[in-house]
Amino acid sequence: MRVLIMGAAGMVGQKLLNRILSGESGIDSSSELYLHDIVSAHVPSGADGCSVLVGNVADPAEAKKLADLKPDLIFHLASIVSGEAELEFEKGWQINMSGAWSLLEALRVHHDQSGGSYRPKLIFTSSIAVFGAPFPARITDEFFCTPQTSYGAQKAIVELLLSDYSRKGFIDALSIRLPTICVRPGKPNLAASSFFSGIIREPLNGVEAILPVSDNVRHWHASPRSAARFLTHAATLDLDALGSRRALNMPGVSCTVAEQIEALRSVAGNDVVKLIKPQLDEQIVKIVAGWPRDFQTDRAHTFGFESETNFEQIIRIYLEDDLPTVS
Amino acid sequence: MRVLIMGAAGMVGQKLLNRILSGESGIDSSSELYLHDIVSAHVPSGADGCSVLVGNVADPAEAKKLADLKPDLIFHLASIVSGEAELEFEKGWQINMSGAWSLLEALRVHHDQSGGSYRPKLIFTSSIAVFGAPFPARITDEFFCTPQTSYGAQKAIVELLLSDYSRKGFIDALSIRLPTICVRPGKPNLAASSFFSGIIREPLNGVEAILPVSDNVRHWHASPRSAARFLTHAATLDLDALGSRRALNMPGVSCTVAEQIEALRSVAGNDVVKLIKPQLDEQIVKIVAGWPRDFQTDRAHTFGFESETNFEQIIRIYLEDDLPTVS
Repeated sequence: MRVLIMGAAGMVGQKLLNRILSGESGIDSSSELYLHDIVSAHVPSGADGCSVLVGNVADPAEAKKLADLKPDLIFHLASIVSGEAELEFEKGWQINMSGAWSLLEALRVHHDQSGGSYRPKLIFTSSIAVFGAPFPARITDEFFCTPQTSYGAQKAIVELLLSDYSRKGFIDALSIRLPTICVRPGKPNLAASSFFSGIIREPLNGVEAILPVSDNVRHWHASPRSAARFLTHAATLDLDALGSRRALNMPGVSCTVAEQIEALRSVAGNDVVKLIKPQLDEQIVKIVAGWPRDFQTDRAHTFGFESETNFEQIIRIYLEDDLPTVS
Repeated sequence: MRVLIMGAAGMVGQKLLNRILSGESGIDSSSELYLHDIVSAHVPSGADGCSVLVGNVADPAEAKKLADLKPDLIFHLASIVSGEAELEFEKGWQINMSGAWSLLEALRVHHDQSGGSYRPKLIFTSSIAVFGAPFPARITDEFFCTPQTSYGAQKAIVELLLSDYSRKGFIDALSIRLPTICVRPGKPNLAASSFFSGIIREPLNGVEAILPVSDNVRHWHASPRSAARFLTHAATLDLDALGSRRALNMPGVSCTVAEQIEALRSVAGNDVVKLIKPQLDEQIVKIVAGWPRDFQTDRAHTFGFESETNFEQIIRIYLEDDLPTVS
């Protein structure tokens, strides 16, 4: 099988790659793997059959090149994050929306040339940013999309494209709307949600972290491990069973920042928690006020998607998978 | 004021033009009017200040030309219909989606060049085709978009684009989701919904009409007169009062085909009704089964949009406004 990962250099892309290589994902670990990103994706030592491709998905010629590989399975994770898409309006639309459309058009050409037999499976990482306040207490599977960021609008549009290209039989796609991925390893990024990971990760590494919002802010989380599992689970599903509704809210853990902090205290103790320094940032407060807090993900559960069930589990996964070890 | 009507040669475009020219719309009837379409729009005799423009909105150069007019108010009605967009996939995406995006990009350039002072109002005719079955008994203002046609997906995407460009302050837009417009004057068109008008219009003109679905099919209608009123009412609203939710389901009349026929009987008598010939068309039956039946349009009413309240009124409006008179 030929598998293309777009956005393979990113954190979730790397988790996905490692999960496929582990042989535990249900995806043939001896597949030809094409790792595409704007920078060279890291290839784990000992991994055979990986080709590293570098290019910008906003360029239609690049999209065509990727479609010309005729992958059987495409994971489309390539995107700039919410903060960057707000600051760089044109870049966001070109990469996050137009790039996806160019890819779909190039895949459709191969579908037509094959007489209809080429119909790749495509799993797209959408986001809960497709939703915008005001919300019901829990967002159900039929709540409408009113994004309040360009990033959210771009994700919602790609969902609609994927649904229509799937309905026509050109591809076989599913958009999975990821919760905020927490605890992200590594450094803070430009996403306004970055602090949700920072207030756990930095203290666990002995570093102070700024908490820019009130601790009664409630939000929706899943671990990087869950993100990789959602992706591979989606790839092994019979997507036709989903009918024409090809976007799914993924399961997650709803908790307040205070509950996050209590989970950290119970896992790592008081001294670690003391490294969290509250310091309101009105800009971030305002952005986060428009974000979803809780979901009722019945449909995802029906199709076998499962996440952590409390925030302590999410912290323990960070400790197991990602905490930098002192060498 | 400079007003641009895109899709001005179409039936709704012409109704809109006449309403503006009537001086009853709240829009200055002495505005400079630019009438754009793929064919020359008809200009009513005696109408001054109308410029007729011909071109294809799918061409980015055409979109730029229209934006260069720097209209204060844009009515964007230009689109190919649902049936055609299903048959001609690429053409549908180019005209109905890409064309709108090109226009927005060209308007954004003028916004930037003006230092932010140029922010045109834009009213877009979206459609209830953004919704796809299964539905609740009545679709509320927060029901999600799951289009089951390319046309519906294209409309839903343009809605998302307009919301984001409005949120950023580049334009000031509203998408109005029109019910099926009934009774359309003139000839049947490629829309699968064409028969809803045909079974009223043809008999009233002494011609037989095919009814291709069961008479218990329920659907959502408004008159051409209402469509023009929705558009001009939208143009005179303070759209900022709508916040970030810039798509509105328009009011209409929910009735079954049997109720349509009874209304026709009561307006025009038995002999006219006898011209309706039931003849199932499985293709149309299948398409129509995925269509909305009824709406609860609270938000539209709050903002002052009103339609007919029963189907007899809709038929009488056809008789008043459109029935061809014998000369």
